[in-house]
Amino acid sequence: MQPAPASCEGIKGAIEKANQEALRRIFAAQPVWIGVQRAIDVIPGMTKRTILHAGPPIAYDRMCRPQQIAVRGALIYEGVAKDIEEADALARSGEITLAPCHHHRTVGSMAGITSPSMPVNIVRNEAFGNEAYCAVPESRERRRLSFGYFDQEVVEQFRWLEVVLWPALDYAVRKLGGINTKRIIASALTMGDECHSRNRAATALLAMELMPVWLDGGFDRAKAEEAARFIAKAEQFFLSLAMASCKATADAADGIGHCTIVTAIARNGVEVGVRVSGLPGQWFTGPAAAIEGLYFAGFGSKDSNPDLGDSAITETMGLGGAAMAAAPTLDVVGGTLERALNTTREMDEITAGNNPDFRLPTLGGLGAPTGIDIRLVLDKGIMPTIDTGIAHKDGLGMIGMGTSKAPIEAFQSALKAFSQEYLM
Amino acid sequence: MQPAPASCEGIKGAIEKANQEALRRIFAAQPVWIGVQRAIDVIPGMTKRTILHAGPPIAYDRMCRPQQIAVRGALIYEGVAKDIEEADALARSGEITLAPCHHHRTVGSMAGITSPSMPVNIVRNEAFGNEAYCAVPESRERRRLSFGYFDQEVVEQFRWLEVVLWPALDYAVRKLGGINTKRIIASALTMGDECHSRNRAATALLAMELMPVWLDGGFDRAKAEEAARFIAKAEQFFLSLAMASCKATADAADGIGHCTIVTAIARNGVEVGVRVSGLPGQWFTGPAAAIEGLYFAGFGSKDSNPDLGDSAITETMGLGGAAMAAAPTLDVVGGTLERALNTTREMDEITAGNNPDFRLPTLGGLGAPTGIDIRLVLDKGIMPTIDTGIAHKDGLGMIGMGTSKAPIEAFQSALKAFSQEYLM
Repeated sequence: MQPAPASCEGIKGAIEKANQEALRRIFAAQPVWIGVQRAIDVIPGMTKRTILHAGPPIAYDRMCRPQQIAVRGALIYEGVAKDIEEADALARSGEITLAPCHHHRTVGSMAGITSPSMPVNIVRNEAFGNEAYCAVPESRERRRLSFGYFDQEVVEQFRWLEVVLWPALDYAVRKLGGINTKRIIASALTMGDECHSRNRAATALLAMELMPVWLDGGFDRAKAEEAARFIAKAEQFFLSLAMASCKATADAADGIGHCTIVTAIARNGVEVGVRVSGLPGQWFTGPAAAIEGLYFAGFGSKDSNPDLGDSAITETMGLGGAAMAAAPTLDVVGGTLERALNTTREMDEITAGNNPDFRLPTLGGLGAPTGIDIRLVLDKGIMPTIDTGIAHKDGLGMIGMGTSKAPIEAFQSALKAFSQEYLM
Repeated sequence: MQPAPASCEGIKGAIEKANQEALRRIFAAQPVWIGVQRAIDVIPGMTKRTILHAGPPIAYDRMCRPQQIAVRGALIYEGVAKDIEEADALARSGEITLAPCHHHRTVGSMAGITSPSMPVNIVRNEAFGNEAYCAVPESRERRRLSFGYFDQEVVEQFRWLEVVLWPALDYAVRKLGGINTKRIIASALTMGDECHSRNRAATALLAMELMPVWLDGGFDRAKAEEAARFIAKAEQFFLSLAMASCKATADAADGIGHCTIVTAIARNGVEVGVRVSGLPGQWFTGPAAAIEGLYFAGFGSKDSNPDLGDSAITETMGLGGAAMAAAPTLDVVGGTLERALNTTREMDEITAGNNPDFRLPTLGGLGAPTGIDIRLVLDKGIMPTIDTGIAHKDGLGMIGMGTSKAPIEAFQSALKAFSQEYLM
């Protein structure tokens, strides 16, 4: 915990000053994608027996099914369990350390299962020196581990990642000396992306930087071709980088005394956890909400797992629901421009500032609403809107897209803890 | 000229029927980029002594300076004149055939000068079998032939086009079996492009299709790398394909008896010419307007050439000014969303229909206003808005971007001719 701002000016002034400092750090962030490495080689505290998961802490037996399935799948992929029964027993045995991604400077999409061998994108916040990590998107398929689906093809896809996609990406990114993701996000916000559920433009802009590098003759041509063909069809490829960029940004604004700004929202499918800058290391939770969404043919809300994934880190840093005005086409719940504008306007009511680099063209260049303030959330009674994918509750993979609301209980308990810490 | 619809239902009914037929053809168009070839090898009627230009017919000595400079430059590039004086004399001699691009199923950006050796994009309207052509963008620089700038570097850039970019593009496009540009335009309209003055998304989507092909090992790696690096930085690269696609679409709707729909707007910097489906082969002209624009540092409206280029073909087919609502970021004249929406709404007042494949997300998915009707233009007194680049009047190249209005005189003389043809 850093020292609180001078207290002589009163608690209100101290909070205001702390929140301005948090915004200053958030706006000054320079997230740069610097490479791709195996999780165990870069994530602090990662061990051969560690499995990271999305959301606040949760024991294996309390996890939702998609997350349990992904844990078991990761243990099989890692070769520490030979089948599902053995993986299940191992996960229950206590011999495996299960920990939130967020405890290891990492964020994980949906189930968020990140195991030692998985390649992770490394994003370094050049303005502050901290790094964040997020697994490379494993697949374009609806049936994938991150959505709680597992079979032998998933394992093979991860092998392909290790042999083809990982080295290809790492080669290109290092050759470019890193790629500033803030610049790409800023452009993508003028191109129909909100950089959570829609990353078409960001992915295309990224691909245009990567692909010419693969033509430089310094990397295996056939592998590069496979990687290029994968990315060209993976419209959400950039999401992992958006998440890691937001995590690297948020971490630099964490741990400011008196600060009431949210530095993470994360869901494990059972609970939604909120972290607050002035209360570092703590989780404030509420029940994971149902998702208002559109479902792929054959599926409906009865099949939906409750809210899941660390990707809500984007909403805390001005993207996703906060930037919905940028993506009127993201028609996940019968959206229209007016509805998209209203979502951003709502987020504007509960945030401390507007990112001057993330301009929203449909709102006259308004900066993306940034820095969710727990006081404003409760005062206005507006819960943050989170854009999200929907996982099947029993492990059939991705079944739709929608929006959810962070639970009021998390903000209520955060305010209570804040009051105990600073007002008593 | 095709037979007019049954006249028994009266002239009004005949016009309505003809216009609906024009819209049917426009909406049914399937423009596909099928390859890149040298102009002389594909453009009908092209000869070694032909130079095509933008806009309605104009003699060399009446041309604006940027167009004259580009004619001379093309003659030097072609090797038929050794210097500017010789080129000027040759252009005046009558030994060179100067003709509008539009007379040869071609459209040309800005000065629009298209000479026999230049590589041109070929777009085939698969639904109707007709082709259209537009020169491959020569450069990303402000100082380029299409904007009326000429020096030795321009010639070298064209040589690079012949040796590197042309073969690289042609290889990739043919390997892909053609690229449907309608699909790309439809996507780009949801990504901040109006596909005239802004083509960032369309270019990125295109690049993502081309670049993986260059990694297939069948084409010279070093050349492919150069081509890829060029396109990755050429935000307007797609414009040539948007233009050729609109030309291939418009031509299929030309020559329908009684039809009052505009099939081309084209500017030579002196006059703006309009063509009407029911009056094929004729040009109706008015003075080229000044441009309301934003200028690069050091330039202002006093430096601006009047309205120039065939790119206004995009406005006739629902793009550019007609699709301004898709591109609120295209802040060329202090634009805002409201202003962008109003431009599209104005175009909606003077067009016969809305393209069901070109949905504008900021207007609730409204189809792009398509089929400018000369009757509506004059009845409502709303002249079509054209997005455009700005050329320096004395040959310094591109100096800004803006919008212009097509002149009322062109529509007045078109209606007069229509009345003479069909009402007398």
